[in-house]
Amino acid sequence: VSPHPRVDNQGPVVEVSGFRIGGDHLALMAGPCSVESEEQIFEMAARLATAGASFLRGGAYKPRTSPYAFQGHGSEALTWMRRAADAHGLRVVTEALSESDAGNVAWHADLVQIGSRNMQNYALLKAVGRTGKPVLLKRAMSATIEEWLLAGEYLLVHGASGVVFCERGIRGFDTETRNLLDLGAVALLSHVHHVPVIVDPSHATGRRDLIAPLARAALAAGAAGLMIETHDDPGKALSDGPQALRSEELAHLVGTFRGMRA
Amino acid sequence: VSPHPRVDNQGPVVEVSGFRIGGDHLALMAGPCSVESEEQIFEMAARLATAGASFLRGGAYKPRTSPYAFQGHGSEALTWMRRAADAHGLRVVTEALSESDAGNVAWHADLVQIGSRNMQNYALLKAVGRTGKPVLLKRAMSATIEEWLLAGEYLLVHGASGVVFCERGIRGFDTETRNLLDLGAVALLSHVHHVPVIVDPSHATGRRDLIAPLARAALAAGAAGLMIETHDDPGKALSDGPQALRSEELAHLVGTFRGMRA
Amino acid sequence: VSPHPRVDNQGPVVEVSGFRIGGDHLALMAGPCSVESEEQIFEMAARLATAGASFLRGGAYKPRTSPYAFQGHGSEALTWMRRAADAHGLRVVTEALSESDAGNVAWHADLVQIGSRNMQNYALLKAVGRTGKPVLLKRAMSATIEEWLLAGEYLLVHGASGVVFCERGIRGFDTETRNLLDLGAVALLSHVHHVPVIVDPSHATGRRDLIAPLARAALAAGAAGLMIETHDDPGKALSDGPQALRSEELAHLVGTFRGMRA
Amino acid sequence: VSPHPRVDNQGPVVEVSGFRIGGDHLALMAGPCSVESEEQIFEMAARLATAGASFLRGGAYKPRTSPYAFQGHGSEALTWMRRAADAHGLRVVTEALSESDAGNVAWHADLVQIGSRNMQNYALLKAVGRTGKPVLLKRAMSATIEEWLLAGEYLLVHGASGVVFCERGIRGFDTETRNLLDLGAVALLSHVHHVPVIVDPSHATGRRDLIAPLARAALAAGAAGLMIETHDDPGKALSDGPQALRSEELAHLVGTFRGMRA
Repeated sequence: VSPHPRVDNQGPVVEVSGFRIGGDHLALMAGPCSVESEEQIFEMAARLATAGASFLRGGAYKPRTSPYAFQGHGSEALTWMRRAADAHGLRVVTEALSESDAGNVAWHADLVQIGSRNMQNYALLKAVGRTGKPVLLKRAMSATIEEWLLAGEYLLVHGASGVVFCERGIRGFDTETRNLLDLGAVALLSHVHHVPVIVDPSHATGRRDLIAPLARAALAAGAAGLMIETHDDPGKALSDGPQALRSEELAHLVGTFRGMRA
Repeated sequence: VSPHPRVDNQGPVVEVSGFRIGGDHLALMAGPCSVESEEQIFEMAARLATAGASFLRGGAYKPRTSPYAFQGHGSEALTWMRRAADAHGLRVVTEALSESDAGNVAWHADLVQIGSRNMQNYALLKAVGRTGKPVLLKRAMSATIEEWLLAGEYLLVHGASGVVFCERGIRGFDTETRNLLDLGAVALLSHVHHVPVIVDPSHATGRRDLIAPLARAALAAGAAGLMIETHDDPGKALSDGPQALRSEELAHLVGTFRGMRA
Repeated sequence: VSPHPRVDNQGPVVEVSGFRIGGDHLALMAGPCSVESEEQIFEMAARLATAGASFLRGGAYKPRTSPYAFQGHGSEALTWMRRAADAHGLRVVTEALSESDAGNVAWHADLVQIGSRNMQNYALLKAVGRTGKPVLLKRAMSATIEEWLLAGEYLLVHGASGVVFCERGIRGFDTETRNLLDLGAVALLSHVHHVPVIVDPSHATGRRDLIAPLARAALAAGAAGLMIETHDDPGKALSDGPQALRSEELAHLVGTFRGMRA
Repeated sequence: VSPHPRVDNQGPVVEVSGFRIGGDHLALMAGPCSVESEEQIFEMAARLATAGASFLRGGAYKPRTSPYAFQGHGSEALTWMRRAADAHGLRVVTEALSESDAGNVAWHADLVQIGSRNMQNYALLKAVGRTGKPVLLKRAMSATIEEWLLAGEYLLVHGASGVVFCERGIRGFDTETRNLLDLGAVALLSHVHHVPVIVDPSHATGRRDLIAPLARAALAAGAAGLMIETHDDPGKALSDGPQALRSEELAHLVGTFRGMRA
């Protein structure tokens, strides 16, 4: 018996509000690290739809390492994202950070994200699973493949309609990049376990100049899609500016993807 | 300004129900990985008190990597621990795993544990902080010192009466031990940041034959105490048997500690 | 002043016996882990030339972790490789393991390899540098980018005509793959430092089923070429059989590379 | 059959010019990172003998990461060390960096050191082994215990009279210390494999304020001795000044060791 029977039987495609992640079309998820204002997210959604994105991402609740950093606009930001996405034919992917918020996030989002710091927060996995929504499960900073698959198993056991995995870089020892992108894990999940995987090169590298080559590499390794931070004035971003692309840079990048997926 | 003003100003001693962790007496926390029955925990408490322990540890809710493994006896186990500890003059340290359990755990425990998988679960840090109890904060699998201190800051900002840090081994590459015990981090927190640190050699090594030398090394590095898994029939333990000591082995170990702390 | 002026000024192409590594054509280096017999290497060379390889790789001296494992056919294997390569229009890349062998290896090889365990063996770097040959410098198991570039600097200071870097996986904590392929480092050397990088997915993963997706990902990340272990009877290989491709599998793989390089 | 029969049968004591490393007396090895002048090493030897050292350590050939850094005084420094040690009843431990120097280093030294960057430089292991001298084998930056033991096996197979292992910190992800001291490995080699291990807290931490607690912790974990960098004017050291102790600080530290070894 497999130690992760539900994940292994899930199959290579997870459907999210009509979009088949793992199917023929690349799942492009883009948007700002933090939702900073209603106006910002509406303008962003328009540009991202034009650039080829299918999902609007953005942080409503921001789990910052320091309690003294900006913590997000919370529930209000969820409604802004929902309306902005609906106005431009996008789906919403955003993070649930608390058991008590899980229902509210699930109500507004098409795909509920579990962040890397909560990958083994079992209370949250159960609460999000019980909403019945599909989930984007980010890998913890030093999770083994087995631990990651088992966290997906928790979600499916408790009711999630599907699990999409997201590799966002693991803890490395080199300070030239923020984290260490593990595309071997992407190839393994995609080609051996046959589950859909999204890659987040923005968090993985923390630097704009490496996003394009690593985005292409992720697709070549088997990724079903990409999550890319965008901001139209990266110098003024409230968080993670140095790794954000402008939406026109994103559009240009998407134009280089042809033929990358196997 | 320090990025972690409350932790840096807390001082080297945290008082927990009359016991001064970081003071003259070594804080010995012992007990089973999981509380398996009321009878077990009463017998264990008696033996541990004799062996020199001041704290009874035990898992009521067990956050297992697999959803198919034993998950603990929950709230009932908390009442068993409380009564067993009171009967033998011990304090209770046990883990809170969910925002909704935080109040109940804080009601039964003297010291509330945050496990390594929840070190950056900010919703839980806030909920536990708000109980006003002292907290034992285990280091995440690959947390930097800075991230660990900032997680302590969250607890203190939200009301915790004190934070005791607990090093339990970080992710390593060698398969001969379960994790990699980082005594450099213990020396740094103890001798440079001057905060109390407990070391858990049981989880760090995962093997009984290394617990004694590493327990002594932890004290020499500056640890204010130890957390050691004990079980009186390790072969029948529902979890983590291979790393558990019998209570008579613990008593013998304690006898070798004289002179270890600087 | 750059701490690695010669590497930073070397430029994106290194010429090796008329082949421009980093130029328009992908540098495909293939062959067995160990050269096992003259007959084997002649047959292999014929097949690899047909499959699209430009370089014949193979171990003459084998630096095995255990002194009790097969250590290679040594100097004799060098002459077999040279004749086999010449018969089929290939170039030879093989490892120098000792200062005293450096001259002999340089005499037979077009490109002299420094293995990962010798990346900071400065006596060897100097001896190989003094031969004036171009060098393939494998990254050490946990070398930082800076240490790797500085090892290249040693080679160039002492006379090497060029340095090609080779990423072969770094030490990771997950046991499902042998090592952890760091394509972020490949993107950084290729797109920021503008030096040619070869990727060795065979050693990086240690498993045949991940070589194809990671080979394509390496090219997408900016690799100038690939080093792939091949063996025509992997089950009988004297070393590293589980990660070797047959030459017909290699030919098929090469057919999937079109459009991968940016 | 053990994969490392000679190491496992060596026993817990290695004799070096009459000193029994692993026996009753702590093996204290001290001296400067680089031997800077004849006068310096004579003065240092006098002070270290008074402070309780039994071995004078010092770099004659310095394997610096950058080819542009100070490379050591070479063969001349070996003769200075030998005379300084003899004048004060000390033994010499110093590193061999090249096959061609191995004989000369073995002639001057009582204990020949293999540095961490050469732990798997098999040509050097063989050359040093053939001198028949006892060897101090430093662990590579990310070597597994098995790889380390097997490197020791190479030395013994080729003739070394004994192998003493030296833990000097492995590659970690936290930038607050230079490396990550692995005392679990020390406990494992000492208490399970029963071979003598020396700990080098100077290289492990890279900072003076952590040397004392980690030196004591090393002894408590089972170390047979310590290697500590000393310099009488750390601010003017040609290399590694920030981690060096003055000889009077060393003497004070030694006074705190009583009772640490099990």
